Amino acid sequence: MQFCFVTLSLMIKAVLLGGGNVAFHLAKALLRASNVSLVQVYNRNLDAIKHLAHETQLTDNLKQLIASDIYIISVSDHAIKSVSEKLPKRDALIVHTSGGTVMSVLENHKRTGVFYPLQTFSKKRAVNFNSIPLCIESNNPDDLRLLDTLAKEISNQVYHINSIQRHQLHTAAVFVNNFVNHLYAIGDEICTLSNIDPNILQPLIQETALKVKDLKPIDAQTGPARRGDHQVIKNHLENLSDNHREIYKLLSQSIAKTYGKKL
Amino acid sequence: MQFCFVTLSLMIKAVLLGGGNVAFHLAKALLRASNVSLVQVYNRNLDAIKHLAHETQLTDNLKQLIASDIYIISVSDHAIKSVSEKLPKRDALIVHTSGGTVMSVLENHKRTGVFYPLQTFSKKRAVNFNSIPLCIESNNPDDLRLLDTLAKEISNQVYHINSIQRHQLHTAAVFVNNFVNHLYAIGDEICTLSNIDPNILQPLIQETALKVKDLKPIDAQTGPARRGDHQVIKNHLENLSDNHREIYKLLSQSIAKTYGKKL
Repeated sequence: MQFCFVTLSLMIKAVLLGGGNVAFHLAKALLRASNVSLVQVYNRNLDAIKHLAHETQLTDNLKQLIASDIYIISVSDHAIKSVSEKLPKRDALIVHTSGGTVMSVLENHKRTGVFYPLQTFSKKRAVNFNSIPLCIESNNPDDLRLLDTLAKEISNQVYHINSIQRHQLHTAAVFVNNFVNHLYAIGDEICTLSNIDPNILQPLIQETALKVKDLKPIDAQTGPARRGDHQVIKNHLENLSDNHREIYKLLSQSIAKTYGKKL
Repeated sequence: MQFCFVTLSLMIKAVLLGGGNVAFHLAKALLRASNVSLVQVYNRNLDAIKHLAHETQLTDNLKQLIASDIYIISVSDHAIKSVSEKLPKRDALIVHTSGGTVMSVLENHKRTGVFYPLQTFSKKRAVNFNSIPLCIESNNPDDLRLLDTLAKEISNQVYHINSIQRHQLHTAAVFVNNFVNHLYAIGDEICTLSNIDPNILQPLIQETALKVKDLKPIDAQTGPARRGDHQVIKNHLENLSDNHREIYKLLSQSIAKTYGKKL
């Protein structure tokens, strides 16, 4: 009995608020963690979290939240403030999971923090939370320690990132995720319009990503803009749509500038 | 003896011309192939190909090329024409390996073709040629068959791509390789300037690439521009350098336009 009591006292109790992509995967990771007890999941729409019914307690009522060490608000950015304000005040740590939202949005609570997983999530794709960078922040050293312990329960990559850094990191993520995906879409479109199976680009896409595991991207750069090869660039520009041509020009100029070439 | 004769007659004899990144990996792949005999490698600088000395005959003299079924010119784009013109005329197939060069650059020869591996190569990184798309082209059906047989000896992905398509494919490759890598470099720079270890972006970079193995990029798009989220975009733009701001704006506008959002 005593052993059982000691074990339980080391468990971190967590309540998760949200039913979107991040919350979906975070719930799974928290349920798998050895020393975390996900005691409740809230969502305004129970349907989105009903798959968790056998694993934890569910609610769609913020007034019925149960006692916990930490409340993790994992809702869309514009809803964080309103959920935080409706959250009854208690002596617990309140965090959000957003890369693009300042910590102070939670300022109606005394103990606040951020627990931001830097990854792109969709419900259909399994993710290995172990390798997802968790960016944590809190003004209170004890709370930061609690967040650090919780984060290390589900990931091997825990970073202490303040709000200013997180803002920049979120911008960087837009470049390497949103914008990169858009360039994939453009490559796809160019192939399709020329009756080429766009899957032909897959090995190149994968190798381009894998290459920067070993090499800094600045050292991995190749291509006509890197070499200052006007003729190839001119040839490429000829057959592009206006929209794609503008993107081609601007990115080529940026590459050329980076390597001291003139276009 | 007879068996030996029959076997040899099925072998494709190839001579490779070049010592750069593509030629380096192509030589290895051709040497590994069961039914190809890489009988000679030419480079104007023997030093760059000396690692092949125990595997095949080497030369730095175009006048000393030996008899072969196919001569593969794998030199930098601007040198293809001059190498082709110096190549003594013979009844063999002459091909180049360039994505950005028309087949007609080889027109001083009677039998010509293209053998373009769509991948990014550097000598330091091992590649699995088996999964690299090989884009082949020839005006002569027999020569196309020969190229097809040769290509299938070293890759499982062989595509018949004409010069017009290859031009477009090469442009698409610039988008998904050169430009994507430049966006990685920008992400890296933003992190470094904010004292964040840029390796934090690695899992996101890899997942972004892996995601489009399952999902078409047009369906995988996320982020503020996709949602038409002005506020997040405005926040991101505030802290970017002029160069990065222009790229952020143009790509966001392009994404927004693709999904019928107004920015």
